[in-house]
Amino acid sequence: MNIEIVTIGDELLLGFTIDTNAAHLARELAALGVRIVRRTTCGDDAQAIARAVQEALERTGAVITTGGLGPTADDMTKPAIASIFGRGMVLDTDILAALQARWLARFGHTLPVSNHQQAMVPEGCTILPNRHGSAPGIWLDDASQRWVAMLPGVPREMRGMFADTIVPRLRERLPVGGPVIRARTLRTANIAESALADKLGELAAGVNGLSLAYLPGNDGVDLRLTSYALPDRETDDALAVAAQLVRNQVGSFIYGEGTDDLAALMIQACVTRGATLAVAESCTGGMLGMRLTAVPGSSRVLQGGTIAYANAVKVRELGVSASDLDTVGAVSEPVARAMASGARLRFGTTIGIGITGIAGPDGGTPEKPVGTVWVAVDLNGEVHAVRAILPGDRSEIRYRAAQLALDRLRRAFDRDQDAVGWTSRG
Amino acid sequence: MNIEIVTIGDELLLGFTIDTNAAHLARELAALGVRIVRRTTCGDDAQAIARAVQEALERTGAVITTGGLGPTADDMTKPAIASIFGRGMVLDTDILAALQARWLARFGHTLPVSNHQQAMVPEGCTILPNRHGSAPGIWLDDASQRWVAMLPGVPREMRGMFADTIVPRLRERLPVGGPVIRARTLRTANIAESALADKLGELAAGVNGLSLAYLPGNDGVDLRLTSYALPDRETDDALAVAAQLVRNQVGSFIYGEGTDDLAALMIQACVTRGATLAVAESCTGGMLGMRLTAVPGSSRVLQGGTIAYANAVKVRELGVSASDLDTVGAVSEPVARAMASGARLRFGTTIGIGITGIAGPDGGTPEKPVGTVWVAVDLNGEVHAVRAILPGDRSEIRYRAAQLALDRLRRAFDRDQDAVGWTSRG
Repeated sequence: MNIEIVTIGDELLLGFTIDTNAAHLARELAALGVRIVRRTTCGDDAQAIARAVQEALERTGAVITTGGLGPTADDMTKPAIASIFGRGMVLDTDILAALQARWLARFGHTLPVSNHQQAMVPEGCTILPNRHGSAPGIWLDDASQRWVAMLPGVPREMRGMFADTIVPRLRERLPVGGPVIRARTLRTANIAESALADKLGELAAGVNGLSLAYLPGNDGVDLRLTSYALPDRETDDALAVAAQLVRNQVGSFIYGEGTDDLAALMIQACVTRGATLAVAESCTGGMLGMRLTAVPGSSRVLQGGTIAYANAVKVRELGVSASDLDTVGAVSEPVARAMASGARLRFGTTIGIGITGIAGPDGGTPEKPVGTVWVAVDLNGEVHAVRAILPGDRSEIRYRAAQLALDRLRRAFDRDQDAVGWTSRG
Repeated sequence: MNIEIVTIGDELLLGFTIDTNAAHLARELAALGVRIVRRTTCGDDAQAIARAVQEALERTGAVITTGGLGPTADDMTKPAIASIFGRGMVLDTDILAALQARWLARFGHTLPVSNHQQAMVPEGCTILPNRHGSAPGIWLDDASQRWVAMLPGVPREMRGMFADTIVPRLRERLPVGGPVIRARTLRTANIAESALADKLGELAAGVNGLSLAYLPGNDGVDLRLTSYALPDRETDDALAVAAQLVRNQVGSFIYGEGTDDLAALMIQACVTRGATLAVAESCTGGMLGMRLTAVPGSSRVLQGGTIAYANAVKVRELGVSASDLDTVGAVSEPVARAMASGARLRFGTTIGIGITGIAGPDGGTPEKPVGTVWVAVDLNGEVHAVRAILPGDRSEIRYRAAQLALDRLRRAFDRDQDAVGWTSRG
């Protein structure tokens, strides 16, 4: 089944809003085995909407639209698409009654007549209920099986309505055993793309006929395996086999799958071990603490931390040696170690983590360029330190430094002293 | 001038990548006075590209494409579009020489013959230099003044090339004094949309014929004034007059304009005053420290901070009263005040900021629901505290709590005790 997506709205067309609906629909449709062949965006203009949807219908006979269903005069998706099907607009008394009830409950008075147009729908359409908002969606089809589904533009409402009402209709129309597009993502940390490619060898070009994509980001490089041509019932197994082949090559650089967050994994690992945590942060300025406390329930693990931005704070609060600061500088192995141990002792925890680095844009030297970071993990008195020279701008370096520290903790838990791919080890 | 945008790539069409290029181009083009009438996305398929671009050309005669210019076999934008214009592909010796030099410098050997196709360009095209990457862009036009500009898909490269090469060409083609679309944004913090609407009164429907949009986000509600119909030379003045009218109504809830960041403004305000800062964070877990240290040069201001997630840490490190914790609880005015003062004294700074709250999802009570936050600012011993019940999920509540604390500091500097719009005051 081929399908087109038409997203509607001046805000989208003018670039004031980024179109996340289209990407969400595309991923979900691909996973069902539906092929998206084109995506179009047009403004809040009845003629532009009618033309874009009509052209899409002529190419595929199957179109999903988002946006233009709201109560304002700008919202003209319904009449524009009704006109393509040669339908008029009629009042839906159920929608009217629901709107009236909502106004009474919310504003204490009756629905203004000017708002009655919200209850107008194309003749002969099917109403798609909206459990997540007020504007219902519309399904319109004709005798030759051409159809248009109109969904709201608010992402939360659109996603809910798509799952509730469109997915079941598409499943009915899809041939059993047809090819689906589905992906599986392995997440790596602290290894460069080129080093990953070396480890992957021949797999880099594809695994058992599945494609392999490198997706570099601040968390690390994600490896995405995608199956484009297998039928639904074979896809998951093929992805599992391929994922194992990749794991065999990349080993301990893989910390998770899908949307796994390394901070959440480490909070969970601490819970499992009954361990508690404290942090000492210089260049990250609180980012590691923020990431750890973003995890619901992290209060069982993270006791506290010290943001030690100034050197005097490192000495006074964490017991860093003033002479180390003078001789080897704040971004150095002994300072990172002292910060980790200082945090552990100060907060009375099982684990202390220290981060010190040069996030830039200034402060780099030939020996310690911008991006130089030392992290240390003190696990019950056993200290593991590692140095990295991280790429990126100030914000990327800081994020990667926090990720490096979390990854060092992961490796300390795993008693895994193995390499850090883009860094020299301390 | 009407224009269409065609963005090219399977990753975009399948939703693996969000299309930020299209939004960037749309904003920049609107500001020049160019009207974008449609945006299309198609996959890495020569026929699909040729069709989409041809249809767009027929509607407007002016098309910008992004993507599909790279070295891989997937990248087929150039030949597909050449075919629309009835042109063949020819080898560009300058591009070839540049590629060969790059390979030699980078990989130490000559360019493989299979890569020579990267130097093939449509007959009679103009090469658009790429100062930010390797693949040049292409400008192709014909005798009837129809044109297609092909830009790379990598956002940084696309943006640079657009500014360098497309903007000057469009300016030449645009009538002098035609209407442009330009916007100006006023940023508010800690006031709800409904309270803003009350303050704005009649202006909420538009200011002097300019539209006024409410854009709620984690930083607060942005108010965007947009001029759609005025000529270039009148637009800035009209926006300035309208902005002043809005400022007269909304007053001290406006903290900045455009992309101003409240943390950066506060670092600057501290620098101006010779003030130093320390933070004490409970529910935000380091986020305020992170936001402050995200600002380059913040080391002159932020000395350090304490992440006081556990109550014992609040008592031991910040001097919070254990009996206050027992009687009024951790999320309370006396605890926030003690945290702010404790941070100021501990780190020897001019200013201390304390944040304590219930970020959820658990931990709320009828008296203190999820979202309840107390922040306090100790400015040289004078403590200002405020309570808010913040909307949103855990992540939004945390971000808004940090923003509330920064806003309280701003008001303390301004000696402005005026209300906090969505909160009850302490």
